Amino acid sequence: MIELYHNAVSTCSQKVRLVLEEKGVEWTSHDVDLLSGGQHDPEYVKLNPNHVVPTIVHDGHVLIESTLINDYLEDVFPDVPMRSSDPVLRHAAGLWIKQVDSKVHPAAGVITFAIGPRAMLLQQPEEVRERNIAAIPDPARRAARRSVIENGVKAPEFAGAIGQFLDLIDAMEAKLSRGAWLSGEHFGLADACVLPYVFRLDQLAMGSLLAADARPIVADWYARIRTLPSYAKAVTEWLPEPIMKLFHANGEAVWADVEPLTRR
Amino acid sequence: MIELYHNAVSTCSQKVRLVLEEKGVEWTSHDVDLLSGGQHDPEYVKLNPNHVVPTIVHDGHVLIESTLINDYLEDVFPDVPMRSSDPVLRHAAGLWIKQVDSKVHPAAGVITFAIGPRAMLLQQPEEVRERNIAAIPDPARRAARRSVIENGVKAPEFAGAIGQFLDLIDAMEAKLSRGAWLSGEHFGLADACVLPYVFRLDQLAMGSLLAADARPIVADWYARIRTLPSYAKAVTEWLPEPIMKLFHANGEAVWADVEPLTRR
Repeated sequence: MIELYHNAVSTCSQKVRLVLEEKGVEWTSHDVDLLSGGQHDPEYVKLNPNHVVPTIVHDGHVLIESTLINDYLEDVFPDVPMRSSDPVLRHAAGLWIKQVDSKVHPAAGVITFAIGPRAMLLQQPEEVRERNIAAIPDPARRAARRSVIENGVKAPEFAGAIGQFLDLIDAMEAKLSRGAWLSGEHFGLADACVLPYVFRLDQLAMGSLLAADARPIVADWYARIRTLPSYAKAVTEWLPEPIMKLFHANGEAVWADVEPLTRR
Repeated sequence: MIELYHNAVSTCSQKVRLVLEEKGVEWTSHDVDLLSGGQHDPEYVKLNPNHVVPTIVHDGHVLIESTLINDYLEDVFPDVPMRSSDPVLRHAAGLWIKQVDSKVHPAAGVITFAIGPRAMLLQQPEEVRERNIAAIPDPARRAARRSVIENGVKAPEFAGAIGQFLDLIDAMEAKLSRGAWLSGEHFGLADACVLPYVFRLDQLAMGSLLAADARPIVADWYARIRTLPSYAKAVTEWLPEPIMKLFHANGEAVWADVEPLTRR
């Protein structure tokens, strides 16, 4: 049995849930409330010294880092394969995963906290908000978090973060014209890795970037993924509707400032 | 046949050469001169749009990113296995590789260019040096490169970079007391990934951090690796002695400034 410590909305949690559901692995849910600082709880930090979700516990082994967790799940539950059998396609899938981990994921923290939960966080008592920011171990991530909560989409980090997302979806538009999936022959680890970030644009009212008239090939990939049973079970069924409505409304409210940054 | 585009001194090139030699794979060498800017040559950039070494070409397929190249080599040449057969140990090896890729590798760029080739670069015509800095695609890496060439070990980035190396070797000292290799049962991908960075400390005259009286367990691991035939073939036989002497002398010259940063 897998114990999953995760959060409904977090991209990295969605990534691991997609793989668990696609493989039909049973798991038990342990919610970590990121807005109140559950990721900094000393008991949780014993499992995950990086203060982030997700973490899995399997047969007494504690496993962290979503990309490495998904690799582990592929190794341990290979019956529904999510890596290509062709090493060249596996390498290509690895490049997508690397781009997300090193560039898109930090950018997702920027665009999410500049828009989605920002108003909620600004309503928290300052000492709670500041304690949770101060507990982020990585200094660059900590500084960016503070900047976007204070300045929203006007933060100096924001335009560069949007640029990372445009790089991703423009590269997908080029690549997916030559093959149906980023992972090779079928929906796999690279698609599961990228999906939560594409979906995040949609959640923050930037869905026009993914529309058929803007990026038809990405739009088709995204539509195909939304028909997968694992998508509903791993992603949409978990999302609290009031939070999603708030994210979307907050995105719409700043779209006039964001839109000029999305033109290339 | 593997075509390897690489550089003798580059850490990521050493990492891939270690795996090629450990597996006994034949390869052809294409040197990329990093000091004169060969990585920015338009012909090379067609192979490697990130402007970095190494790149391999195998059966007409171009493969980039040293960690993903090593995964590919493991997939294609599995006869000498360099991943554990135990998924839990593979996950643990993956954490070392992730730490190196995301934290230690950027820090290595900082400490190397603050010390090793700095004097040589300062003697280049300014327009050559500036052209090669300006051609670094990643803005954060570009800014750090300029800062350390200008300011050496006094650059604001330097102390943090040393901290990343200390985090690495202190974590190794703890981990290797519970097992002989970072990769699991035998020398493998995680050890090959970490080695060039440990060796870089040695090259820059910081070998006292790796000595038996400072970190006996790391010292033992490092000594064992230096007895491997692949180490000589992949690392030491490639290194130009005048450059290595210069790196070491430059490291000794600044050690009085560096040493206080290495105390914990």
